[in-house]
Amino acid sequence: MGNERKIRVGMVGYQFMGKAHSHAYRDLPFFFDTGVVPVMAAVSGRNEKAVQAAANQYGFESYETDWRRLIERDDIDVIDIVTPNNVHAEIALAAMEAGKHVICEKPLALTMDQAREMKAAADKAGVVNAVCHNYRFAPAVQYAKQLIESGRLGRIYHIRAQYLQDWIMDPSFPLVWRLRKEVTGSGALGDIGAHIIDLARFLVGEIDELVSEMTTFIKERPLGEMSGGLNASTEGGKMGEVDVDDAVSFLARFQNGAMGVFEASRFAAGNRNGNRFEINGEHGSIRWDLENMNNLHVYFTDDKAGQQGFRTINCTEAEHPYAAAYWPAGHIIGYEHTFIGLFAETFRAIANGTQVKPDFEDGLRDQAVLAAIEASSEAGRWVKVEQA
Amino acid sequence: MGNERKIRVGMVGYQFMGKAHSHAYRDLPFFFDTGVVPVMAAVSGRNEKAVQAAANQYGFESYETDWRRLIERDDIDVIDIVTPNNVHAEIALAAMEAGKHVICEKPLALTMDQAREMKAAADKAGVVNAVCHNYRFAPAVQYAKQLIESGRLGRIYHIRAQYLQDWIMDPSFPLVWRLRKEVTGSGALGDIGAHIIDLARFLVGEIDELVSEMTTFIKERPLGEMSGGLNASTEGGKMGEVDVDDAVSFLARFQNGAMGVFEASRFAAGNRNGNRFEINGEHGSIRWDLENMNNLHVYFTDDKAGQQGFRTINCTEAEHPYAAAYWPAGHIIGYEHTFIGLFAETFRAIANGTQVKPDFEDGLRDQAVLAAIEASSEAGRWVKVEQA
Amino acid sequence: MGNERKIRVGMVGYQFMGKAHSHAYRDLPFFFDTGVVPVMAAVSGRNEKAVQAAANQYGFESYETDWRRLIERDDIDVIDIVTPNNVHAEIALAAMEAGKHVICEKPLALTMDQAREMKAAADKAGVVNAVCHNYRFAPAVQYAKQLIESGRLGRIYHIRAQYLQDWIMDPSFPLVWRLRKEVTGSGALGDIGAHIIDLARFLVGEIDELVSEMTTFIKERPLGEMSGGLNASTEGGKMGEVDVDDAVSFLARFQNGAMGVFEASRFAAGNRNGNRFEINGEHGSIRWDLENMNNLHVYFTDDKAGQQGFRTINCTEAEHPYAAAYWPAGHIIGYEHTFIGLFAETFRAIANGTQVKPDFEDGLRDQAVLAAIEASSEAGRWVKVEQA
Amino acid sequence: MGNERKIRVGMVGYQFMGKAHSHAYRDLPFFFDTGVVPVMAAVSGRNEKAVQAAANQYGFESYETDWRRLIERDDIDVIDIVTPNNVHAEIALAAMEAGKHVICEKPLALTMDQAREMKAAADKAGVVNAVCHNYRFAPAVQYAKQLIESGRLGRIYHIRAQYLQDWIMDPSFPLVWRLRKEVTGSGALGDIGAHIIDLARFLVGEIDELVSEMTTFIKERPLGEMSGGLNASTEGGKMGEVDVDDAVSFLARFQNGAMGVFEASRFAAGNRNGNRFEINGEHGSIRWDLENMNNLHVYFTDDKAGQQGFRTINCTEAEHPYAAAYWPAGHIIGYEHTFIGLFAETFRAIANGTQVKPDFEDGLRDQAVLAAIEASSEAGRWVKVEQA
Repeated sequence: MGNERKIRVGMVGYQFMGKAHSHAYRDLPFFFDTGVVPVMAAVSGRNEKAVQAAANQYGFESYETDWRRLIERDDIDVIDIVTPNNVHAEIALAAMEAGKHVICEKPLALTMDQAREMKAAADKAGVVNAVCHNYRFAPAVQYAKQLIESGRLGRIYHIRAQYLQDWIMDPSFPLVWRLRKEVTGSGALGDIGAHIIDLARFLVGEIDELVSEMTTFIKERPLGEMSGGLNASTEGGKMGEVDVDDAVSFLARFQNGAMGVFEASRFAAGNRNGNRFEINGEHGSIRWDLENMNNLHVYFTDDKAGQQGFRTINCTEAEHPYAAAYWPAGHIIGYEHTFIGLFAETFRAIANGTQVKPDFEDGLRDQAVLAAIEASSEAGRWVKVEQA
Repeated sequence: MGNERKIRVGMVGYQFMGKAHSHAYRDLPFFFDTGVVPVMAAVSGRNEKAVQAAANQYGFESYETDWRRLIERDDIDVIDIVTPNNVHAEIALAAMEAGKHVICEKPLALTMDQAREMKAAADKAGVVNAVCHNYRFAPAVQYAKQLIESGRLGRIYHIRAQYLQDWIMDPSFPLVWRLRKEVTGSGALGDIGAHIIDLARFLVGEIDELVSEMTTFIKERPLGEMSGGLNASTEGGKMGEVDVDDAVSFLARFQNGAMGVFEASRFAAGNRNGNRFEINGEHGSIRWDLENMNNLHVYFTDDKAGQQGFRTINCTEAEHPYAAAYWPAGHIIGYEHTFIGLFAETFRAIANGTQVKPDFEDGLRDQAVLAAIEASSEAGRWVKVEQA
Repeated sequence: MGNERKIRVGMVGYQFMGKAHSHAYRDLPFFFDTGVVPVMAAVSGRNEKAVQAAANQYGFESYETDWRRLIERDDIDVIDIVTPNNVHAEIALAAMEAGKHVICEKPLALTMDQAREMKAAADKAGVVNAVCHNYRFAPAVQYAKQLIESGRLGRIYHIRAQYLQDWIMDPSFPLVWRLRKEVTGSGALGDIGAHIIDLARFLVGEIDELVSEMTTFIKERPLGEMSGGLNASTEGGKMGEVDVDDAVSFLARFQNGAMGVFEASRFAAGNRNGNRFEINGEHGSIRWDLENMNNLHVYFTDDKAGQQGFRTINCTEAEHPYAAAYWPAGHIIGYEHTFIGLFAETFRAIANGTQVKPDFEDGLRDQAVLAAIEASSEAGRWVKVEQA
Repeated sequence: MGNERKIRVGMVGYQFMGKAHSHAYRDLPFFFDTGVVPVMAAVSGRNEKAVQAAANQYGFESYETDWRRLIERDDIDVIDIVTPNNVHAEIALAAMEAGKHVICEKPLALTMDQAREMKAAADKAGVVNAVCHNYRFAPAVQYAKQLIESGRLGRIYHIRAQYLQDWIMDPSFPLVWRLRKEVTGSGALGDIGAHIIDLARFLVGEIDELVSEMTTFIKERPLGEMSGGLNASTEGGKMGEVDVDDAVSFLARFQNGAMGVFEASRFAAGNRNGNRFEINGEHGSIRWDLENMNNLHVYFTDDKAGQQGFRTINCTEAEHPYAAAYWPAGHIIGYEHTFIGLFAETFRAIANGTQVKPDFEDGLRDQAVLAAIEASSEAGRWVKVEQA
């Protein structure tokens, strides 16, 4: 932690994701030797008082009130984008143009056009470009990947995945930016659906075609905005139209013949953060649930008859990816470690001059699935992802 | 159990379902006073030796080698049909024509035409007509129904239901009758999909439209047949084409605005009998799983903040439907009780001259959903159930 | 089920246990061919109206108002004792004297003297003598026994077992016979503690010495009695002293070096019927819980590193003891099957002229543990079981 | 995080606990504003190369090879002791003598005499003195405390607690310092038993008397030592006697009448870190398990009949202690946060000139229970804790 090269980070935005990223910068060198060390150089935001407070709380050396200043600064190597989705593209393009490495929250962009442009710019710039599908980096998910890649589950027949939340069920919850299409692009789809799409692509492969349904249960809400974290305040009592989906579901055929059944909803009472999947293969199955993210439930068809059953594997052992860097077996880790793992790979890539996964190519492919879902929902029929 | 009117039953068929029904006849008067008492009068089957053995094992007074004999016999009040699906209609129509009450295994028929004819005949005959969607009668499912009916969960937003099995995953498993379209109509769809469709209709309401996907993973199998229970024997090594679905999934819009996501598969390794659902409503959610069928997991949004969470309710208490008839709280019941509950209602209807639910109307409505799923799978687009 | 020898049963008592036994007689020949068939010949009870109703409901051919009549009757082969504990000995001795086979509810007796006399009489009479530790006969428990017996878990280090209930926590619950020492001998100890003692002996072996603690939380209660099942009615408001334990716990050293930690309580809120154990051995561990009695959770130390975890085995497969007689894999059974399994072994023993386990020897050994627990609780020190 | 007073920490030792403490110092100001900010000033250890590496990895400004140097340094405000147990007392006494605040790993001392001396010195010095029973600071445990303190569970009848591990089951695992009495004092007892004793004291109250059993299953092991983390290396093949307990169990009577059943073992295969308890009160029960540390399972007797069951409460909501400082609801935290919570209270006490709990008084009381357990195990009878 002493002599490694310092990599200086400028972060654009500072709300929930800003907190998660900042914490990961702080903890990364404690757990992993990536060859370089991130330095929290600056954070930017338009509200000076708020961004100053964030810089102070998170531990940034400085702050800016215009993200363009971060890009202009020579002392900054990496631009980390944790803004609402509608400005991802502009910032990322400018950063890459300036030769900065880019870390971008998901979904990559608002539209396929933006995503394609970002991917092209990344190719041209040759910088490290990461998209923050952090759930890939739960050790249990990484271990699932190893099992599948190694053929231990054989041909994959099924994936069923859900990302269920319940934080906007109250009709008096205001029309925050995550519920406005112009800012966020879509509702449950891009916010949480994107995560299970990325996990499915990571674990099962590319989706060939799909058919979808998008629903908005509560059609209008009080105007208002979040004030820090997930708290919200309303404006008078004026109402506004909700133009994004409250819930989305879709059926998918994968290129390798697997079938997928997916659902994302913000109206699933009692599910605070229910990101779950089950994958069934020829030789076994796996189950995972973010709310118990250390456990991977694994079934092997070649277990002895009479002794077959799902095993609850606590993925905190030396054999499990990333786990050895943390704590001894049985000492669980939490949500924040998904970002630490993602950043470990990102900074390793920076140190080694390689590329991280998931990168903007993944962001683009995820975006194509989002676009196909919207197209299918409008058309009422199956849609090829490549056509999106 | 002494002086009640005897109701004499003739059962057509004697395999797995025949065993389950026979057991239920045997146990019914022990647990419930329905006003009448079933008598196991006769069982029929074409193989005399096998049907005689079944009569002996199950406790039937007599047997016949032609089901028409059961219908001719004046001493028989109820015809119970546990045959493969392709002969449900013929037997049921003949039985009702003869004025017998009818209990018919699901799915009701092979085709919508058959199902409509059966429903019309039932209306005309005025007999009790039950279709065996036994899972409605798990006390936990009945309690879920009470919660929903009473408005305790408010408006229903979501149901996600799966029926997952894994008994034919081995490609060398033979082409038994449950895998041949002419005998069974469909594969996972009619066999297990029908159960979750019926549960969804029972708990949430009628489906307006749907879009589906049906898949056959293993396209040909050795010819062969089951020999008792689920054991199977193959014929030489000759192969035959599998013309039914191994797995089916569909998205549904309910008439009341709820969204459904459904999946049935026989290729979900490690899921022996995974009949599961979660329902999310405005004021709470419920979860159920056949493999732990005594438990209902219930979440209420009006629980005190900080004390919210799914409750694991063991539905073996006096407050739970049917449970008082069985054992004290905490003493669980098993699969067989779903039939005992169904038959309790059926024989109560016979005793009282009323009708049982689910009846042939339910069977017809379930069939319409099955038909719509097949139509959507072929058309690749959303299909209205009423058009089926 | 046709030509087998009929074995005629006379049952003394008819409350909760009477119902469970009666049901098992009814179902036994449906599931098992033991070589003989039980016939429910007669039930006895002092209250003629009540015993007549019980005979009718359970399906006995006749009834008696004095148990001695059952013993006098030549047409009765087996005396089944489901009375309160204080009359077990007298009835069993008379029955064996008359050459009847005896099935006796647990605990075997009120005192060690009684238990020794019963064991001696059983040896002399040479009849089949069963004590109803029915939980041995859950297929998951039987499978646990196979794993241990075969050495699959290696040397056993630990057993921790609890039987937790909560049905008398309300201080206004009356002083029913299960709470009066003269009738029942002890409280939680003999009623539910006896079950986990027997399971421990069955699975781990004999206890060498122990140290215990017995507690009565509610010292006096309204006088009153159960009226059918577990319902209770009080008498006026007169109070009586509770002279049995509400809860008991003990530490045990087994003859084979294993350590045991045991607890039985009727004051464990939320535990309706929490009969649970975990056993840790050199090569693995098992966990079981009556409220999910079909599942055995098994851990093997020789599973591959990184893939180690408790497996949830649903013991409903052909490989699991008794399970093949019931339903296909994944179709769970309930509480009542523990008696069906016990009676299957009992009637096989009658058919074959052999002896069933658990028999009066087990009853006596279990009783010695109960006696040692009472002795230790009084003495405040470790007590050898053999001294009891 | 800017202008707060800096509190400079010198840590003695740097193995597993050193890593956990260091991480907590690093993360503390990110999550909590305690009024002061810890600075990782120095770490000490006898092996210069190793301590230098630790300083570098953990982020300490400097290192020393003699802990006495830390105490001499004027720039150090807090001495944090993460050494083996046999040197806790000497270091803590010297530190308090020098007016330093002290944070000491548990168990506080090797003997009651040491513990009493440490408590007296703390009283005299008037410094903040913390003992690291970190598990009190899981939000779910803190919420359990609130429920009990507020009377929500009523009178407490039972606690059953286990701390089960399996890391030394292999007989070839070497005789590391945690297995040598002169260094560690006891085996499972002081290492993990101490944690459940402290949790029981925290949640239920003081223990009046107890009876115990201590066992050593593997009597001799290869000589050797841990080399970083929990890895171990052996010395040739020389064997040494294991003079500490592999497992301990005890029954306890609390001063408030509650009964306790406790067990700690390092021979419970499949239990990597199974720190679990269930508490039963007059009005409800709670269950907790470290391996799923975010969840508290709560049962209330006043829930509506038919709707009673344990709720799984994910203690990540604003209503749960400490949780608001971390992540939004449903985003779980891990093991390391137990130390962050403990240090938040410790540094708040330093900032405010108050005292933290658990302090050396708790450490002394915990030690008295450990001493009573050892005394009872030798005497074979109940022992009063106050006599220890």
